[in-house]
Amino acid sequence: MNGTTRTVKVGNVLIGGGHPTIVQSMWKEAIGQIDTALTARVDALGRLGCGILRFAVPDMDAAERLGELAAVSSLPLVADIHFDWKIALRCLDFPIAKIRINPGNIGARWKVAELAGKASDKGVAIRIGVNGGSMPKDLEDRADRPAALVEAAEREVAAFDELGFTALIVSMKASDVDETIRANRLFASRHDIPLHLGVTEAGPAIPGIVRSTAALYTLLKEGIGDTIRVSLSDSEENETIAGSEIVALADGGRKNPSIISCPKCGRAGFDTHAFLSRWQGRIYALGKPVTIAVMGCVVNGPGEARHADLGIAGGGGKAIIFRKGAIPRTVPLEDADSEFGEELSRL
Amino acid sequence: MNGTTRTVKVGNVLIGGGHPTIVQSMWKEAIGQIDTALTARVDALGRLGCGILRFAVPDMDAAERLGELAAVSSLPLVADIHFDWKIALRCLDFPIAKIRINPGNIGARWKVAELAGKASDKGVAIRIGVNGGSMPKDLEDRADRPAALVEAAEREVAAFDELGFTALIVSMKASDVDETIRANRLFASRHDIPLHLGVTEAGPAIPGIVRSTAALYTLLKEGIGDTIRVSLSDSEENETIAGSEIVALADGGRKNPSIISCPKCGRAGFDTHAFLSRWQGRIYALGKPVTIAVMGCVVNGPGEARHADLGIAGGGGKAIIFRKGAIPRTVPLEDADSEFGEELSRL
Repeated sequence: MNGTTRTVKVGNVLIGGGHPTIVQSMWKEAIGQIDTALTARVDALGRLGCGILRFAVPDMDAAERLGELAAVSSLPLVADIHFDWKIALRCLDFPIAKIRINPGNIGARWKVAELAGKASDKGVAIRIGVNGGSMPKDLEDRADRPAALVEAAEREVAAFDELGFTALIVSMKASDVDETIRANRLFASRHDIPLHLGVTEAGPAIPGIVRSTAALYTLLKEGIGDTIRVSLSDSEENETIAGSEIVALADGGRKNPSIISCPKCGRAGFDTHAFLSRWQGRIYALGKPVTIAVMGCVVNGPGEARHADLGIAGGGGKAIIFRKGAIPRTVPLEDADSEFGEELSRL
Repeated sequence: MNGTTRTVKVGNVLIGGGHPTIVQSMWKEAIGQIDTALTARVDALGRLGCGILRFAVPDMDAAERLGELAAVSSLPLVADIHFDWKIALRCLDFPIAKIRINPGNIGARWKVAELAGKASDKGVAIRIGVNGGSMPKDLEDRADRPAALVEAAEREVAAFDELGFTALIVSMKASDVDETIRANRLFASRHDIPLHLGVTEAGPAIPGIVRSTAALYTLLKEGIGDTIRVSLSDSEENETIAGSEIVALADGGRKNPSIISCPKCGRAGFDTHAFLSRWQGRIYALGKPVTIAVMGCVVNGPGEARHADLGIAGGGGKAIIFRKGAIPRTVPLEDADSEFGEELSRL
């Protein structure tokens, strides 16, 4: 969240200007049949905290399908286009919210002008997405990588500035955490354009979440960044949960459920891992800022998690279910799931 | 890594005094039969970057089994003891490296003296582990939680100081990230005792890794913290991979493999998720600082990951395998796994 950037409208969402940091994800597959299964998954991503959803649009067929989805989607959609500017123009015939293009991909100035003109007419934002792995030739080998990322972005910004197009968002992503942090700090010190933060090619879930948190939490805590994506070799749902958690920690004002739970140890009589794997999805789907505790030990559990809205602590063949301000209830372990489920639905 | 703390010996590992930050994990189950399966798993944790391994010791039987394991373990072992100081004394009959006790659990002063004396004779370190969820009664409701955590730790430190026992490590863990950061900053500003960092009840993998990275990366970057544990409702292996990644990012001098990989998108012709799920374990088990890239796209992949020691990029029914400084090779997609495996074993 950054109070010093200009505000850019992305569908029904406002980015920058001190508005809450928006979490994004990107669809992992080609856009298929637009059916209720697809729209239900989009809705579910929204409940997990996803505020904007991006799709790769590699060809005209994909543009048509994205257009069909945009007409019914509960989330603002972004068309991600490489190389072919005509695909971008076609996407602008539909109610999409943003276009993401790669620097240098559009080509001739008149093409940029046509694209900016049509986006402006339709009220569609444009994100310039600079990527450390695909830099302009003359910047590729510059030793100061953060400065090179910023310069690549500034060249694109200049092209849109000349045209008077201001609904811009910029991202500068590297696979290196320090480089990503430094590039965004430098850009933020010079411009009032909202920043989309991310680490690129961040890897599978564990290293990807570590790298994304290190870069994005650090920047958001400094007031840099208006929207983020945690990019993982993992599902859209997991990208969204991780992104929501980073924003909750960095900005405060949590909007998603918080799960606290024991790591399990040789003392624990309750399999918190198995319990969580059964309940985690439903807890996150609540889509509101409740704290749920899953504790491995009836002795310390309820005490350690007494601030939780709902908690369970197991051990010795029984479970204790506790709610903030209510007297803890002891139930047999075999009833723990059903009792927990009932309490959860009351939240 | 912190150059200003005193050095404490934990088995064959040095903690504090500017020595490299050590990653720890904790065993999730009761200690079972000491057999080759158990010792092989301990060895494997070492290759993933685990430098110290902790076990809950809830009773005398567990102490005996820990002693048996300590005699053959490739990693220094820590006995985690609550309530019963006699279990701690028994553990000190074996070649363990450290004892972790909870504040106030030991009780009478003469018991503390006996424990410190025996630990000193045996050259065993003691970690004082203060936990936000189990604070002394008079500190429980203090509004300034970080100061309360520090005071709880300082009371315990004072008891050992009076006895002249200096092989101390302190941890102050809360489930709240800010609280954990502030408590450790405050303690580090006052004492030269090495700090063990962690967020307690951090949750399942995704929120747990986000919270742990936010707190631990922030502190390590400030030069605070000498050893860390990422506590997750997930496996010891995943705790270790996450911890190793945090230390690599914060301290530099990576010792573990780095995987960079695409998140997959509607353009990708190669299932990076499935490929990684087959290979991730073997890559991390290499136990050395190589960079492996798994890219979803033959067009940009090899360019974006040209600094990788070994990379694969798939698409269009073929895969490109590239090694730093070598000419990329194109292989049919069905041979990708076997070719990648061969190259991996050459690293």
